[in-house]
Amino acid sequence: MALTILKIGGSIITRKGSDEPEANLPEVGRICREIKSGLKEQLVLIHGAGSYGHPIVKRTGIHKGIKDEKQKIAFAKTQALQNELNSIVCRELVKAGVPGIPIQPSSSAVMKKGKLVFMDTEVVKGLLELGLVPVLYGVPAYDSIQGCSILSGDSIITYLAKKLNADRIIHASNVDGVYDKDPNKYEDARLIRELTSLDNIKVTGSNHIDVTGGMYNKVIELLGSGVKAEIINGSKPGRITKALKGTNGLGTIIKPS
Amino acid sequence: MALTILKIGGSIITRKGSDEPEANLPEVGRICREIKSGLKEQLVLIHGAGSYGHPIVKRTGIHKGIKDEKQKIAFAKTQALQNELNSIVCRELVKAGVPGIPIQPSSSAVMKKGKLVFMDTEVVKGLLELGLVPVLYGVPAYDSIQGCSILSGDSIITYLAKKLNADRIIHASNVDGVYDKDPNKYEDARLIRELTSLDNIKVTGSNHIDVTGGMYNKVIELLGSGVKAEIINGSKPGRITKALKGTNGLGTIIKPS
Repeated sequence: MALTILKIGGSIITRKGSDEPEANLPEVGRICREIKSGLKEQLVLIHGAGSYGHPIVKRTGIHKGIKDEKQKIAFAKTQALQNELNSIVCRELVKAGVPGIPIQPSSSAVMKKGKLVFMDTEVVKGLLELGLVPVLYGVPAYDSIQGCSILSGDSIITYLAKKLNADRIIHASNVDGVYDKDPNKYEDARLIRELTSLDNIKVTGSNHIDVTGGMYNKVIELLGSGVKAEIINGSKPGRITKALKGTNGLGTIIKPS
Repeated sequence: MALTILKIGGSIITRKGSDEPEANLPEVGRICREIKSGLKEQLVLIHGAGSYGHPIVKRTGIHKGIKDEKQKIAFAKTQALQNELNSIVCRELVKAGVPGIPIQPSSSAVMKKGKLVFMDTEVVKGLLELGLVPVLYGVPAYDSIQGCSILSGDSIITYLAKKLNADRIIHASNVDGVYDKDPNKYEDARLIRELTSLDNIKVTGSNHIDVTGGMYNKVIELLGSGVKAEIINGSKPGRITKALKGTNGLGTIIKPS
């Protein structure tokens, strides 16, 4: 059975501008119902952290490692916050009729200076065969060199795509796709319909605090996954369902050469 | 550095009689402050599910496996509920100044007809060395034979005690220890001060719904851990702190021969 990996950006499930963790509950509900409508085959869901992750990480600096007692507490607190957001997402999935089951990536993930070197995937495989939808998410994770670093949702996509031999990646963000220049600054910014490499393209950062990197890093990760991907605007109703049902060309297609 | 595994029974952190998931927040807070007072060396915390787990498991039958769509949803929902309880516990730990970090055991655990055959422990080891307190908990887990079975907090103790070479297990329940007969039925029930085997002892089940087995199973698990353990009454203030600080003989000592 074909396997899709769907990433839901933290920007569309939380109020990302907020300094305090704040879920965008109506949007979480809508997205979960869209997933239910579009669900055909095997699906892994990965969500970002938005205001549940970026402000606390930036404030405490745990993505650069653990140096004191305060940061140990911050590491623990940040993980608990991610689980709380994940519980909200999974609760709405279940409400919509999707068997979305939490999988905390940092329960087995080992990082090395910010790079993911191992994550157990046997359970995810087993749950997929069983017909469930594993729901993973960006987390602060154990780092064998610096104590802690951030395992972003985007890195999880790449890792899982390879390990599970995924057929397709859908990356739902709050923009229509990748532009040739910052669409917020330039009126003539043009949406790129297909990307096979980053050559000759000036991709600017996102305009939110994003300690795990903005669009540029997303594209690098997606190009590195070896799987056909598409970045779509998940905040526009209907697009997630359409993409899940198989429609291509809703945003920017990323085709690793 | 010496490693203690502390289990907090679901009976003392939730309203166990309740049909709906209900945390006993004042008790969770008190227990977390007791942990802070008693914390000396490396500590792994494991908590039970109480009313967050047993009623839904009994109602849906997922501990016996997954047979239909409804049970897939129940499996997912039960996992999310456990994470919610765990978030409450970790939040109170952090509030008390303990770097208690969630570790979802079912992210890597593989069961086989109800028996735990594998769980990743590298992250737990790493976090302990870093000075954090990993917090694990009873969960519905992937079962390679029947789809799902319950990985109880008690089974996690035994597994971790062996894998991490623990020095001591403290099992905080809502009774003083193991009795020679049911203390709720027999006035002359006598608290057993030390147990080295189950020979000649009639241990009755607990009087709550407990799909993971009552005191009898706890003792079997503890005897099988190969580590000196003690069952204490965690609902009596002060005992958890005392036990963590090294006091023995507060309840029933379980000494595997």
